[in-house]
Amino acid sequence: MYAALDIGGTKIAGALVDEEGRVVRRVQHPTPARESARVLMGAVDAVLDGLAKEPGWSGIHGLGIASAGPVNTAQGTVSPVNIPAWRDFPLVAEVRSYPSLLAGIEPVLVGDAVAMTAAEHWRGAARDVDHALCMVVSTGVGGGLVLNGRLHQGRSGNAGHIGHISVDLDGAPCPCGGRGCVEGLASGTAIARQAVAAGWVRPRGEEATAAAVAAAATQGDPAALGAFDRAAQALAAAIAATATLVEIEAVVIGGGVAQAGDVLFAPLRRHLDSYATLDFVRGLRVGPAALAQDAGLVGAAAAARASAGRAAAARTSAGRSAAGVRVRG
Amino acid sequence: MYAALDIGGTKIAGALVDEEGRVVRRVQHPTPARESARVLMGAVDAVLDGLAKEPGWSGIHGLGIASAGPVNTAQGTVSPVNIPAWRDFPLVAEVRSYPSLLAGIEPVLVGDAVAMTAAEHWRGAARDVDHALCMVVSTGVGGGLVLNGRLHQGRSGNAGHIGHISVDLDGAPCPCGGRGCVEGLASGTAIARQAVAAGWVRPRGEEATAAAVAAAATQGDPAALGAFDRAAQALAAAIAATATLVEIEAVVIGGGVAQAGDVLFAPLRRHLDSYATLDFVRGLRVGPAALAQDAGLVGAAAAARASAGRAAAARTSAGRSAAGVRVRG
Repeated sequence: MYAALDIGGTKIAGALVDEEGRVVRRVQHPTPARESARVLMGAVDAVLDGLAKEPGWSGIHGLGIASAGPVNTAQGTVSPVNIPAWRDFPLVAEVRSYPSLLAGIEPVLVGDAVAMTAAEHWRGAARDVDHALCMVVSTGVGGGLVLNGRLHQGRSGNAGHIGHISVDLDGAPCPCGGRGCVEGLASGTAIARQAVAAGWVRPRGEEATAAAVAAAATQGDPAALGAFDRAAQALAAAIAATATLVEIEAVVIGGGVAQAGDVLFAPLRRHLDSYATLDFVRGLRVGPAALAQDAGLVGAAAAARASAGRAAAARTSAGRSAAGVRVRG
Repeated sequence: MYAALDIGGTKIAGALVDEEGRVVRRVQHPTPARESARVLMGAVDAVLDGLAKEPGWSGIHGLGIASAGPVNTAQGTVSPVNIPAWRDFPLVAEVRSYPSLLAGIEPVLVGDAVAMTAAEHWRGAARDVDHALCMVVSTGVGGGLVLNGRLHQGRSGNAGHIGHISVDLDGAPCPCGGRGCVEGLASGTAIARQAVAAGWVRPRGEEATAAAVAAAATQGDPAALGAFDRAAQALAAAIAATATLVEIEAVVIGGGVAQAGDVLFAPLRRHLDSYATLDFVRGLRVGPAALAQDAGLVGAAAAARASAGRAAAARTSAGRSAAGVRVRG
């Protein structure tokens, strides 16, 4: 059994997750996002209290934390964009000091898109795939990589940040400071903006969301179709770039925009044929994510599980060496 | 000692390389690039004959082959663009059957840009760096990655193909089939073409090469400076994309265009400040390659050495397990 936390701008969720990746107990609190760092940590403690009451708590092999980014896994800190009071907040140290945490459990931090990737690789659409890109296309665009059968997180845990690679070097400035970033062309926000700019009129009483644009595209609205086509083109260029740089077999896309289904995936596959042209990147498998709401929790548990597995392997290897020395002696 | 082959469109080189990465014996033949597959393999054999005569040959621990791409390391085949008779040519099997090759030596194939990366990581500018991108900017643009202290080659050995990622999704068609590829904006050929288009007049009797454009840029020629600036911008967008996707600490650039020195590196560093903006990609170290002519040979030897090291580790680990079993028994 593994404990998992998933910390976002609107909710803080916790779970106990079993060896098969099933959520067996779930706890949730709203995020007091505008409150102080201490109040925020109090909400995390309340979620942990909910888990600590469960009988499974005393048998956990690890604790994983998925957090909205940016994160710094090397330092164990988080600076979630939508939680202003937490800047370089030492979340790992704070969770480690939770009173009833079992001795020897070292919390493992991952970014939320990396957690989604870990979850899809463990028991979702990237299961049994050794080289994969998983993406979240929603208000923002994020992602994570599986390389050689393992999560590739990078030194600070931020690898896979596909939303902020430039596919249009002379393009529009991005809030990140760059230009022509994928997020500015393919996020739900960008799709709604492009549809409106092309003349799509949102239905009375509805907001201009990617979901509303997707509904219009299904009805054949040309402005809506054009907005999804442009987003798909940007995603295709970025996915092809990723495949060309690291070689991947499969791409898994989750998040609200992926709910549009073929409205997104059909033009995406078409554009991929134009950008993923070299022999070793052709025929990339692209499909929707399999896990929805609990991907963050399952992914946090997956990261804790992988870390516990590596620690056990290191102990076994040290034991073997010691045994070998004794034999030779 | 390691044996190394470096197979390009103009020459086939061979070497014996010692444990410190020094070339202790070097053999070279011109590539009979327009001849049959059999004649080409005869030239490879002639280079191997030259190495097999050396006393060090009988003590080699491995044999590495760097080849112009595309390569397929999973299948052991090469299809070098400039060697038309070799298409999916089983180079590894052919070298393995070389009569005087020591029993148990399994040839290791790498693409030429990956070989350059292995060389720079072993004893060049990426030494002691665990996360690096190495590039060759020349007639074409290629590259390779070091991730977590190891060469990341991908399933088919083609990872790092940075020349064919799109940084301009609506850009000019590329011979690869894509659009707006880095190679079309930043190769030596592209730099010369852009300089001419902007009004640079090549000196009488000289060819329109990137080196001639670099000379003009040093003299302040605005068209020449503009061509290097545009190439640097494309390289910066691609390097930033790579850093954002996989997290790297250092970028090493070799090849003819990198010979331009600050004419390239000054605008490159400036543009990087515009594209590599997220916390975890800022402050990327960018500099020239340290190894020149022999990078292919040294890199082939490095790949053979890494492969021999992994094989030895696997044997040790198996031995330890056996020892452990005996102790427990």
